[in-house]
Amino acid sequence: MFQNFDPPTDPVTGDDRLKKLRKHMQSQGVQAVLVPHADEQRNEYLPANAERLAWLTGFTGSAGEAVVTDDRAVLFVDGRYTLQAADQIDGEHWEIEDYVSAPSNTWLARNAGANTQIGLDPWFHTANEVARIRAAAKDANASIKFLTENPVDKIWVDQPAIPAEPAHIHDSAFAGRTTREKMIEMDAALQKNNAKACVLTDPSSICWLFNIRGSDVAHTPITLAHAILRAGELPLLFIDQSKLDIETRAFLTQTADLHAPDDLVEELKHLSPDARIMLDPDLAAFAFTQIITDAGGTVVEAKDPARLPRAVKNDAEIAGARAAHKRDGVAFATFLAWLDKQPPGTIDEIEAAKKLEATRTNLAQMDTPSLPLKDISFDTISGSGPNGAIVHYRVTQTTNRILGDGELYLCDSGGQYDDGTTDITRTIAIGEPSQEQRHTFTLVLKGHIALSLARFPKGTRGMDLDVLARNALWQNGFDYAHGTGHGVGSYLSVHEGPQNISRRGTQELLPGMILSNEPGYYREGEFGIRIENLVLVRNATEIPDGDIAMLGFETLTLAPIDQRLIDTSILTDAELHWLNAYHGWVRREITPLVTEEVALWLKQATEPATRDLPAASA
Amino acid sequence: MFQNFDPPTDPVTGDDRLKKLRKHMQSQGVQAVLVPHADEQRNEYLPANAERLAWLTGFTGSAGEAVVTDDRAVLFVDGRYTLQAADQIDGEHWEIEDYVSAPSNTWLARNAGANTQIGLDPWFHTANEVARIRAAAKDANASIKFLTENPVDKIWVDQPAIPAEPAHIHDSAFAGRTTREKMIEMDAALQKNNAKACVLTDPSSICWLFNIRGSDVAHTPITLAHAILRAGELPLLFIDQSKLDIETRAFLTQTADLHAPDDLVEELKHLSPDARIMLDPDLAAFAFTQIITDAGGTVVEAKDPARLPRAVKNDAEIAGARAAHKRDGVAFATFLAWLDKQPPGTIDEIEAAKKLEATRTNLAQMDTPSLPLKDISFDTISGSGPNGAIVHYRVTQTTNRILGDGELYLCDSGGQYDDGTTDITRTIAIGEPSQEQRHTFTLVLKGHIALSLARFPKGTRGMDLDVLARNALWQNGFDYAHGTGHGVGSYLSVHEGPQNISRRGTQELLPGMILSNEPGYYREGEFGIRIENLVLVRNATEIPDGDIAMLGFETLTLAPIDQRLIDTSILTDAELHWLNAYHGWVRREITPLVTEEVALWLKQATEPATRDLPAASA
Repeated sequence: MFQNFDPPTDPVTGDDRLKKLRKHMQSQGVQAVLVPHADEQRNEYLPANAERLAWLTGFTGSAGEAVVTDDRAVLFVDGRYTLQAADQIDGEHWEIEDYVSAPSNTWLARNAGANTQIGLDPWFHTANEVARIRAAAKDANASIKFLTENPVDKIWVDQPAIPAEPAHIHDSAFAGRTTREKMIEMDAALQKNNAKACVLTDPSSICWLFNIRGSDVAHTPITLAHAILRAGELPLLFIDQSKLDIETRAFLTQTADLHAPDDLVEELKHLSPDARIMLDPDLAAFAFTQIITDAGGTVVEAKDPARLPRAVKNDAEIAGARAAHKRDGVAFATFLAWLDKQPPGTIDEIEAAKKLEATRTNLAQMDTPSLPLKDISFDTISGSGPNGAIVHYRVTQTTNRILGDGELYLCDSGGQYDDGTTDITRTIAIGEPSQEQRHTFTLVLKGHIALSLARFPKGTRGMDLDVLARNALWQNGFDYAHGTGHGVGSYLSVHEGPQNISRRGTQELLPGMILSNEPGYYREGEFGIRIENLVLVRNATEIPDGDIAMLGFETLTLAPIDQRLIDTSILTDAELHWLNAYHGWVRREITPLVTEEVALWLKQATEPATRDLPAASA
Repeated sequence: MFQNFDPPTDPVTGDDRLKKLRKHMQSQGVQAVLVPHADEQRNEYLPANAERLAWLTGFTGSAGEAVVTDDRAVLFVDGRYTLQAADQIDGEHWEIEDYVSAPSNTWLARNAGANTQIGLDPWFHTANEVARIRAAAKDANASIKFLTENPVDKIWVDQPAIPAEPAHIHDSAFAGRTTREKMIEMDAALQKNNAKACVLTDPSSICWLFNIRGSDVAHTPITLAHAILRAGELPLLFIDQSKLDIETRAFLTQTADLHAPDDLVEELKHLSPDARIMLDPDLAAFAFTQIITDAGGTVVEAKDPARLPRAVKNDAEIAGARAAHKRDGVAFATFLAWLDKQPPGTIDEIEAAKKLEATRTNLAQMDTPSLPLKDISFDTISGSGPNGAIVHYRVTQTTNRILGDGELYLCDSGGQYDDGTTDITRTIAIGEPSQEQRHTFTLVLKGHIALSLARFPKGTRGMDLDVLARNALWQNGFDYAHGTGHGVGSYLSVHEGPQNISRRGTQELLPGMILSNEPGYYREGEFGIRIENLVLVRNATEIPDGDIAMLGFETLTLAPIDQRLIDTSILTDAELHWLNAYHGWVRREITPLVTEEVALWLKQATEPATRDLPAASA
């Protein structure tokens, strides 16, 4: 099993760790320290050795930060984690603040006394973050002191080692482009910025560029590494070489000078004098700025040059995405058919999640050669009834509940395959749904369809389209408090920038980008709804008599949408047509690849919908 | 007549003016000068004395800039003015460049030779513009020299005087709030910025704050003035006092210290030492930055504090807007009824525009007391056939053409009344429209309706809604190359910031804002379509069972939409319902106020639409 359903680590009680930390702070001459939920490389999933915030506070959520001063200890979390944080920390020694309305820098500006020295580990804050903290410190007449060692590492006695799992070659049949080809774009970025070098700190960028993958962190097939691109010379790749077998090592030496991770700082110092060196101010640790500047170099702030090329999938990656989604669709249909046979009130969230993972693992042998599931792409969100309304719900033995009669079951999951990354959400009626559940589900579906059908001119950004997915909900006084879509990698991170569809989606959508289309609706304490397909940006089919070529989305995800939850009387003709065309496609593609039993279930699940009422009322 | 249909001034031929300018440049020791289409206060309509660009180049468009060097003279205009500019300038002495792809600062960076001194009049460029020009100069190893006198003024012998038309009190019945009440928000802005003073340079802000109006420029009822707001003291108002009668002068002295315009610089110098003074870097001339800094003060860059309060209309302004639109609707229905009686091919664009202005001027006496038309709010865009496809078309004796059989007639116009500013566009079928005209008109209408029906949560920005007006066009391979809506003032500028609905609409929409809703479609050389109503942002009617309160738009404009151009077979039920409800409202409101003949016309023009075909195909 890739997913672990144990409850989060035992709560941290008492103040032993805080006392040790404060003693260490004293030895360093600082009166406050920051402990973010982050590793040196801004990975979404932290390696075990980087779970410093959890070890210190007991809080295991995916975002947060602690500030510890001589006499106070404050944990900053956002709204979705307030209850969980209160459960996990020791309230006698810790306070909780809201990360959004009162972030740590605002808190510091108000509470750090004059002349306080705030200790920062420059490996755990980006240049932009340091600038914000510095401004806050200035407002409080306090100052920043950069620490040479991480304060938590100094007191965490049984801290796990840095992971060193095997890395492997990402076959060119899946990658589609060689490192040499990708380097052309990297060299162009160096040239454009008139830079001698560029430090790549995001493992996703490095794995993409060098066509390698690994398993140092959960669910994202990256291997931890750093790289320095150099104008006119082979790039330097810093990676623990115990992770490389002979073939992978030989493969990498074709396009990079391999170095041990410990060489990184020295090599950068060596390169820096009088050099212009590119850093992404939102990704790179501030330590890099210090190293370059101290060695007499100039930092050129520029976006990670691999981000945009990585987001625009090539033909092989697109073909891979289609194949991976077909395979994933077979697993998902098999899961749904099984789920539908279980009488309401008989299975629980963990059983359902385990069954889904098992169907992905036991995929029928339809590919030659078959491509097995490498990992799930994130912990399955398996939420029934009120748990479905918790957007970032993670089921554990403690929160687990039965899928009850009359409830909605929300299941958000995905798989990692050599040829692509999937991410799908379906919401299933357990027993007979209420009219309210059907109404809100249909509004979410209308938004999902509006985005699926969108055509848009070149230059359109994700933010320009977000409203299409919300309009039907807004018309009825509803909304959802998350973005509509995130970028998705190619056998890489399931959350990939720079593309997204949300209020903040400033990136132009380009053919080849893969994004999710996942509007939702959440009624706290009652139920949650989300309908998610992945879509590929591509040239739209030509429009007769149209003036300009348009872009549009090709849906990749293949799985029935629960028709028991659709009120067809509020669908327009165009929406009904989309639904039936989608289900026809799912049936045609999946039926030949599943068992007869699943095929029978699929037939009824994809039956063309008709209207409940004689006249549409759109 | 408020509108003048004369062709633009005679083309400027020869290089007499250029020779004089270059001679003057030599005397100042500069090798290049910039002549923008702008006055010192960034007015949309320039007073006659500020038409420096037109006088120098012959080009009379509403946007552009000239760069004159020792041996070249370049006029920068955007795409909509390329043809007109070529017509108006002397091509032997002037070149034309595209303002968008190659703006003057880019051109200077490439073409200003090393050691060139570029002469700038700091009264005609904002701080942000100066920064851009300075950067361009640096790239070319050139430098900036600020001129103490405007170079065109030095050589323009018969330059008109600065206008000094009478100003008058804007009655509190229309203004809704006193200056004293408005000053509370101004004082709060000073306090928030910890500033001693704020220079207001936008006449719209000054007229709004002091509840005065005037007629120094065409179509926008402002009076030219400057103001300095001071923390804890009466504001200083700099205005030519020959424009004030006894009552207006007495009124203004209640809330301001009146000064002559010539005192402005001295008073600002006096205030500046050691003071923090607010300037809007997008509105204020760079000269203010120089004055403050030279006198030992600090410039605090901040948005004009009157912008947002001015945009959020109060109850009196909202009531005024509704009344003004009703009055304007009476005039417009009268005009449309007249137009419909003219056989195709019998009247021309100028006759139509004159007739429209006359109906606005001769409004029936329906108000007690009646509020007459004060001015049109901009030159009527009266374009038939291919002229309708020119977005910023201005009809003159030279371009005038007959409204031909089978053509579309696009008419975009508005009125200035004491109680409000109107702006309406209707597109009318002359004779029998083609299927193509009806199809594209209906797509534009679908966008117009989608925006009219929008509901959206607090926090929604204009940019979030823009796509609603484009979606139907995009679905068919069409688009329009302008924003969907601009803000509108209250008996002030018909183009008012900061609110707008476009890709760049970052301002949150707040209850009380008035905007236009004007999607369009333009087929070059053939026809143009635009449907424009003004809308008011307000709390939407409560939605039973909705989770959150929503905002929405109340349509203000009252005029039939030409049903001969609507293909009802592609309207959804909701769209058809909006159309019929809108026409029902127009009929109820306008019928009692028009002649029997117009009422009869209005009845058929607002007849409820039905579907052409038995089944809708949305």
